[in-house]
Amino acid sequence: MITVDAALRLVLEQATPLAPARVPLGHALGCVLADDVASDLDSPPWDKSMVDGYAIRVADLATGTAELEILEEIVAGAVPTRSVVPGATTRIMTGAPLPPGSEAVVMVERAELLDERRVRLADKPPRPGQNILVRGSSFRRGERIIPRDTLLGPVHIGLLCEVGCAEPVVRPRPRVAILSTGNELVSAAETPRPGQIRNSNGPMLAALTSKVNATPIELGVARDELADLRRRIAAGLESDLLVLSGGVSAGVLDLVPSVLAELGVAQIFHKVNLKPGKPIWFGSREAAGHRTLVFGLPGNPVSSLVGFELFVRPAIERRAGRSTAPHSIVRALIDNGPFTQRGDRTTYYPATCDSAAHGGAARLSVRLLPWQGSADLRTLAAANALVVFPAGERTYATGDEVDALLL
Amino acid sequence: MITVDAALRLVLEQATPLAPARVPLGHALGCVLADDVASDLDSPPWDKSMVDGYAIRVADLATGTAELEILEEIVAGAVPTRSVVPGATTRIMTGAPLPPGSEAVVMVERAELLDERRVRLADKPPRPGQNILVRGSSFRRGERIIPRDTLLGPVHIGLLCEVGCAEPVVRPRPRVAILSTGNELVSAAETPRPGQIRNSNGPMLAALTSKVNATPIELGVARDELADLRRRIAAGLESDLLVLSGGVSAGVLDLVPSVLAELGVAQIFHKVNLKPGKPIWFGSREAAGHRTLVFGLPGNPVSSLVGFELFVRPAIERRAGRSTAPHSIVRALIDNGPFTQRGDRTTYYPATCDSAAHGGAARLSVRLLPWQGSADLRTLAAANALVVFPAGERTYATGDEVDALLL
Repeated sequence: MITVDAALRLVLEQATPLAPARVPLGHALGCVLADDVASDLDSPPWDKSMVDGYAIRVADLATGTAELEILEEIVAGAVPTRSVVPGATTRIMTGAPLPPGSEAVVMVERAELLDERRVRLADKPPRPGQNILVRGSSFRRGERIIPRDTLLGPVHIGLLCEVGCAEPVVRPRPRVAILSTGNELVSAAETPRPGQIRNSNGPMLAALTSKVNATPIELGVARDELADLRRRIAAGLESDLLVLSGGVSAGVLDLVPSVLAELGVAQIFHKVNLKPGKPIWFGSREAAGHRTLVFGLPGNPVSSLVGFELFVRPAIERRAGRSTAPHSIVRALIDNGPFTQRGDRTTYYPATCDSAAHGGAARLSVRLLPWQGSADLRTLAAANALVVFPAGERTYATGDEVDALLL
Repeated sequence: MITVDAALRLVLEQATPLAPARVPLGHALGCVLADDVASDLDSPPWDKSMVDGYAIRVADLATGTAELEILEEIVAGAVPTRSVVPGATTRIMTGAPLPPGSEAVVMVERAELLDERRVRLADKPPRPGQNILVRGSSFRRGERIIPRDTLLGPVHIGLLCEVGCAEPVVRPRPRVAILSTGNELVSAAETPRPGQIRNSNGPMLAALTSKVNATPIELGVARDELADLRRRIAAGLESDLLVLSGGVSAGVLDLVPSVLAELGVAQIFHKVNLKPGKPIWFGSREAAGHRTLVFGLPGNPVSSLVGFELFVRPAIERRAGRSTAPHSIVRALIDNGPFTQRGDRTTYYPATCDSAAHGGAARLSVRLLPWQGSADLRTLAAANALVVFPAGERTYATGDEVDALLL
């Protein structure tokens, strides 16, 4: 049985980035840029005023006061029609293009309007260029503004607008098909009959997928029956990843691996040395140039979550072009020892982790939750971390340091 | 002019949580639960097997080995039809209901099938209840499972399914109308003519809104003209928040405040003692039981971002029912001093902050970026924090401690 690290390496080897696609700006948030973006204009595109005020020749205010003739007023979106000459000024708005001949802008707060055509300015003698941002001083047309492989945040969206890139080329959001399997499953809206339980994994996995900025495609519940499994799995293979829950442990009706083989999915591993989540299955299919990664997660909810965090999330991120570390692992001190842990596999144990992010200097601490095992979603809902216990038996004291995987 | 803290208090006073609404599970992720959720069933709903194996009477394996008659096999979704009696066993799958009479389950790994009807078990003598999870041991029907005011994450979505809550009552996602104003604005896809610039604020504010789990409603660009402003602002007042960019500084065509007054929006403040972003306008309207908060942000992109982070984001979060602190402020050490800062207002300065979240113990440090002022989106795109410099003049050395607002 392979280790978590070895399994993760195999997953990441298969998790090639998706082919670049051009998307509208409204869909680019959270995607990774696949090409450099250059500007199609100088920024600012003209010598512009940084304040509301009066554009003047500097010599006119050498004494600190001046009465000047107002030539015109340039509002935002308008262009100057007259040159500023000695003894004259143009009223100008923030961001508007500077009229020819002007050398500085005096803030409107330093001006007193005498009548419609005349203004009195009183200010320190201006230096040339005062309150003026020169054309191209921020960046030049053709200059690279955002490098490829940038994860696009809200400010990048604004910047893409500014430089005229209305449809950036990005790694598209991975489509993640989600299929729950099992004769016992009914939907949340139904009342289970004896022997039945509600399908909590499908909606949970869809929510986890949304949180990684991927697109979940919910394929419902497949019965433990060959024809139904075949039909739904075939549909799921159209996506970039297919996540199955249930059907991969050693039970009599665990038909999933054979249907996957039949549909051309090559098994890469089955079973990983971890707890919970040992029976996890992973494979890949390449058909007509399209690769689908297939994960079979155990049917119980906590195993499903652990399998998602350890393997599916990093695979989604790599296919989306992100190069971040696959997991956020921190060192933290146990807060509520003594705690005895025994097992023959690496164990991922729900905990709350107090982050140091809100203090200049701090230690991270973890509090182990009173967990009832792999079906106990209620306890897991309170967790924000999984403490990683190595195989073997050990009693941990308060203050002992452990690894914790942040959720 | 009021301070940032005073302005924030006024904003939060107005930012009442939205009325609860019932939403499908697929829309509940990231929302705050408005009512307690109780379970409509026991969990587990029956005594269930925690492993794949054989349900037996403990006395039958007192010696550590036994050959037993197989009565039936209970697959997932099925129910037992026969009682387990001495000398007999029922094959059972993980999660399936235990047959009457059985006292323990022996793992399938300890069993050897002799023929279709007989099995040999070899294991330590079992204790009563071994590998059995008793009905209701996780929680009971009617028990409160998720308290109100919980921010729903993916695991809560699974838990809501489990307890039969297919349509939770939550604070709905705030609808945030976004309206850019200015005759000079054209869209990202257009080539600006002289005097024109592209509208980067609208798409950036929409992206910022999406990231807070609110729904942006983009109302396009309003011209500096009364009828157009009136029409679009009236449309925006249908939303829970209306965010305008541009039109609130002292310029000749800054018509926004008067149109807002005319449409019944009461001004709460105009201008805050900060840089960049001083001209920010805030008001509120209550009409037919519906409250809209209105923010007028300055038109330049960096001021817009700062105004959003300081005031709009906390308002969205409160209206969504979240009670988190309005800002993430950390203490951090300057990494690239000396740096001289002067100004008559509190200044928010773009920086990168190295978080301690990935180490057990660490200091946070900030690196001030080479920022060119309030139109410089490119530098801002690299920032993940704003250093908060108090008014006045001071030279900061490397290692000096400052406040930083995390973006």
